[in-house]
Amino acid sequence: MTSYTAPVADLRFVLNEVVGLDRVAALPGCDSAAPDLVDAVLEEAGKFASGVLAPLNRVGDKEGSKLENGVVRTPTGWKEAYNQFVEAGWNSLPFDPDHGGQGLPWTVAFAVNEMWQSANLSFGLCPLLTQGAVDLLTEHGSEEQKRVYLTRLISGEWTGTMNLTEPQAGSDLAAVRTKAVRADDGTYRISGQKIFITYGEHDLAENIVHMVLARLPDAPPGIKGISLFIVPKFLPDAEGNPGRRNDLRCASIEHKMGIMASPTCVMAFGDDGACTGYLVGAENRGIECMFTMMNNARLGVGIQGVAVAERAYQQARNFARDRVQSKDLADPKGDPVAIIRHPDVRRMLLDMRAKTEAMRALALYAGTQLDTGRRHPDEAARAAAAARADLLTPIVKAWSTDLGCEVASTGVQVHGGMGFIEETGAAQHYRDARITPIYEGTNGIHANDLAFRKVGRDGGAAAAAFVAEMRATVAELESLPGDDIEAVRTNLAQGLDALEQATAWMIATQKQGDARTAAAGAAGYLRLWGTVAGGWMMALSAAKAMQGLRTPGADHRFLEAKLVTARFYAEQILATAPGLLVPILTAGRTVMALAEDQF
Amino acid sequence: MTSYTAPVADLRFVLNEVVGLDRVAALPGCDSAAPDLVDAVLEEAGKFASGVLAPLNRVGDKEGSKLENGVVRTPTGWKEAYNQFVEAGWNSLPFDPDHGGQGLPWTVAFAVNEMWQSANLSFGLCPLLTQGAVDLLTEHGSEEQKRVYLTRLISGEWTGTMNLTEPQAGSDLAAVRTKAVRADDGTYRISGQKIFITYGEHDLAENIVHMVLARLPDAPPGIKGISLFIVPKFLPDAEGNPGRRNDLRCASIEHKMGIMASPTCVMAFGDDGACTGYLVGAENRGIECMFTMMNNARLGVGIQGVAVAERAYQQARNFARDRVQSKDLADPKGDPVAIIRHPDVRRMLLDMRAKTEAMRALALYAGTQLDTGRRHPDEAARAAAAARADLLTPIVKAWSTDLGCEVASTGVQVHGGMGFIEETGAAQHYRDARITPIYEGTNGIHANDLAFRKVGRDGGAAAAAFVAEMRATVAELESLPGDDIEAVRTNLAQGLDALEQATAWMIATQKQGDARTAAAGAAGYLRLWGTVAGGWMMALSAAKAMQGLRTPGADHRFLEAKLVTARFYAEQILATAPGLLVPILTAGRTVMALAEDQF
Repeated sequence: MTSYTAPVADLRFVLNEVVGLDRVAALPGCDSAAPDLVDAVLEEAGKFASGVLAPLNRVGDKEGSKLENGVVRTPTGWKEAYNQFVEAGWNSLPFDPDHGGQGLPWTVAFAVNEMWQSANLSFGLCPLLTQGAVDLLTEHGSEEQKRVYLTRLISGEWTGTMNLTEPQAGSDLAAVRTKAVRADDGTYRISGQKIFITYGEHDLAENIVHMVLARLPDAPPGIKGISLFIVPKFLPDAEGNPGRRNDLRCASIEHKMGIMASPTCVMAFGDDGACTGYLVGAENRGIECMFTMMNNARLGVGIQGVAVAERAYQQARNFARDRVQSKDLADPKGDPVAIIRHPDVRRMLLDMRAKTEAMRALALYAGTQLDTGRRHPDEAARAAAAARADLLTPIVKAWSTDLGCEVASTGVQVHGGMGFIEETGAAQHYRDARITPIYEGTNGIHANDLAFRKVGRDGGAAAAAFVAEMRATVAELESLPGDDIEAVRTNLAQGLDALEQATAWMIATQKQGDARTAAAGAAGYLRLWGTVAGGWMMALSAAKAMQGLRTPGADHRFLEAKLVTARFYAEQILATAPGLLVPILTAGRTVMALAEDQF
Repeated sequence: MTSYTAPVADLRFVLNEVVGLDRVAALPGCDSAAPDLVDAVLEEAGKFASGVLAPLNRVGDKEGSKLENGVVRTPTGWKEAYNQFVEAGWNSLPFDPDHGGQGLPWTVAFAVNEMWQSANLSFGLCPLLTQGAVDLLTEHGSEEQKRVYLTRLISGEWTGTMNLTEPQAGSDLAAVRTKAVRADDGTYRISGQKIFITYGEHDLAENIVHMVLARLPDAPPGIKGISLFIVPKFLPDAEGNPGRRNDLRCASIEHKMGIMASPTCVMAFGDDGACTGYLVGAENRGIECMFTMMNNARLGVGIQGVAVAERAYQQARNFARDRVQSKDLADPKGDPVAIIRHPDVRRMLLDMRAKTEAMRALALYAGTQLDTGRRHPDEAARAAAAARADLLTPIVKAWSTDLGCEVASTGVQVHGGMGFIEETGAAQHYRDARITPIYEGTNGIHANDLAFRKVGRDGGAAAAAFVAEMRATVAELESLPGDDIEAVRTNLAQGLDALEQATAWMIATQKQGDARTAAAGAAGYLRLWGTVAGGWMMALSAAKAMQGLRTPGADHRFLEAKLVTARFYAEQILATAPGLLVPILTAGRTVMALAEDQF
């Protein structure tokens, strides 16, 4: 079994030094995010993640969740862990105190969420989706819906799901066919089948609140004819307690490559014509409501990418410290040494670590923009931050999950032959991670979202503002000494040049109406964004580390490691950014050139 | 279940047009490699691979091989398939006709091996290791050993294994502890435990010939005190038939992430003090003998990288042709279309295809150099080709297996959610592929082999000769028209510039005695070699395609696809080669900078 130690010091450094938690704590309603309280939250969450959730990760992988007679049984110990999770109040961290939440900013919640997902990705999915349902009802639910559902979802007493996908409707939600018919009592009768429903059925909570996309008989075709419904497993009685069983069931669960303990359900609604649903928002406006939930979940999945990378890094580092094999290149007459002494093993570990730190900082930075976009007293500041958060969402989702898979793969490699043996645990991270670039919108969908909606639609305004802020950091780095900083600064400047060129090309290509060419370059363009924005985060980290290293009493060994890792990122990862430009700009020339039968 | 169609036309194109099978067929003893015979071999092998082996791939993954009472049972249908394989003579293709082989060049055998590995990686491992044992005994066995073992290994009647690894001796064979004691009859008593022994025990063949590294009591310490032994499961009787059961057993098999049907065994030798081994070559010279087997197996594993990529590509392409989802970007009012119409899906497919074609060509080119190095009548020509093959071995092994994993991962992504469901089959390729960068020497070991032994040791002579030959192709491309060729040419020229710079740096760094810095850059250096040498192959392919496109009667649609794929490779993959330079040259600055407890 593999252990996990929550990286509290790293998270604290990023929150306090890199992304500016103090500015978030100064926002209206965020005063609970004072440094000492946040410290305490991180410490306690770290203990819960490493002590309770992490040991269940391998159990979950081995046992999996099982469907028996319509009931999904989670693995040994999971129900007890979930109860503890709810009782400790972990589910309610970032939510409205009026409905039982603790009112902490999302920035802090993201840091804590990383720990849950590192400790146990399959477990963490359940609150991840519940959080999405909470966000959705907070924004779009009626007062009655908030009273009945929101409080119980916030506490975690009940859990939430997203019921979007159908066999013919995956990326393309316009193809949704599940039906909703108006009933006389103001409710709706839902019928149809949904697939890939995470935690669609389980034994962790007393009720499950499905958020279901369905189509009214008289709805317009396509995406503008879809409505959103609350479809609870048990219909709440007058007191709001779980009452009559609703007409819905889990028809089967999928046999997957990873996240074995997270039940991926086929859900059947209304087999007996008696499935009750409650409309959320207005009829035919379901997609807009669902996007609130999806945006939240997208950042949450991006954090899963960070999280699995951190877990894989810890596991590989621990193995590399213990495993003795071959002599030190610098001491060919000596005894065999731990493999962490070998340059290529170190290179792999630093690659894992640098990517993880860059991803983490970018995700937490997105959290600050989310909080600022919602709470800043100044409207223009809110709008700017919201636009930044919107721009960052596909980047955090797709770049972090692509890198999460890469890091997990490197983690297997560090283990050599042992990495391929399931008992070691490295393989589980590799298998688990692979779903993250797929769910909550494939990374290809996010690349298009970035290229067309987040950059193209406003003519590059949000992108330009972001680039300008990153340029300012390049200028600031000039005042700091040393060749580490210099390496970071020059590579960031070159990366920004490439990003500006690619952005100008992307906008011009769309203006020319050549959507296919733009789309062909979109994945590379997203990769470039992540690489450079992550490099900016590492540059801020390096600057703070360098400042700290000139301060007596600071933890110099910790800061030294931050500086070296930032330089590694700059020279090994950010340095490849200019090389991404040609692939982006030229993809359209070949990608559409062949007929389908020439593939 | 997923189907596989052997890419016979692609293989034929590479053999005849790109790597010059005609030159191989002109070598002494290779006259059987006439085009029509090779065509027939490819056709028949393709039928066997797709008809017999491919359908067993998923069966093997689901059932796995099982150890029961000391006997390993392979999955349903495997024994029958192996019998057919042997009866059809497939095992004997590239071996000496004097011992029952068919005397075909390795170039052709590599093409056929790709099919076995694409069809069924777990199955293909068994003959892959047997081939290694054949090569070893051909070179180092006594006449008696050749008579008894070689003929049966060539036919495939018996299978071979490599028994190198022990718990404390993985990459570092100097740490081998298995003991060999001289017996009065000229044989040896072997005792000890080996781990990770592929097909160490199974029910496919009547005997298993273990090639075991062990240490004599009076052997010098380290790598120069290891001897190599034939340790058969059944000791051959006077007629050479399997006789008395030897004192060895499979103690357990590993629970792995992939290649489930390939039994990975813990082997116990001499539990009862009666395990008989026969020395191969001289005492204490076992490593040299074993390297013959390992070099063969390394190229074989590189071909597994190609093979799993081809299989994953076929699977993803077939899915993308069938799966209808979302509208065409160029026809937003139309109906949803097959996802192969979407630019990002095409980009993924072309990425898979371009990498596969480049890897395939490079592996087959390595085959031509192997054949030429062994058979060319001119000693200087033999030496040059052998040096080229030596240089290519770590590149083909490591670059192809890294890319194999990347391509298999992209294959999962093309499938969206279905890719994560085991029934689809894409996940199996992703899991199976992951062992290939690890076994037969981790890719990190190969990076060092390339940097130090293959490039550093001769001061870059073999590397320079190779680069000069690739430069000649750049010059030749100038005479061909069109912007496809121009894109290929300019990117190849830039890639070669980067490769020359990196090589000069690598040699200078080693000359300065800075082995750690050289080793820190070695993995990137190997990647650069693969990227550029693969680009050279694609350039040759593009040139032949362009020439063919000007020839009436040629298959223009096929050649057009080759040209477009070569351009895609040049602009999407080869174009990133210059960007690899900074990471190679700078890795040493950060990789060794941290103390172990700073990780």
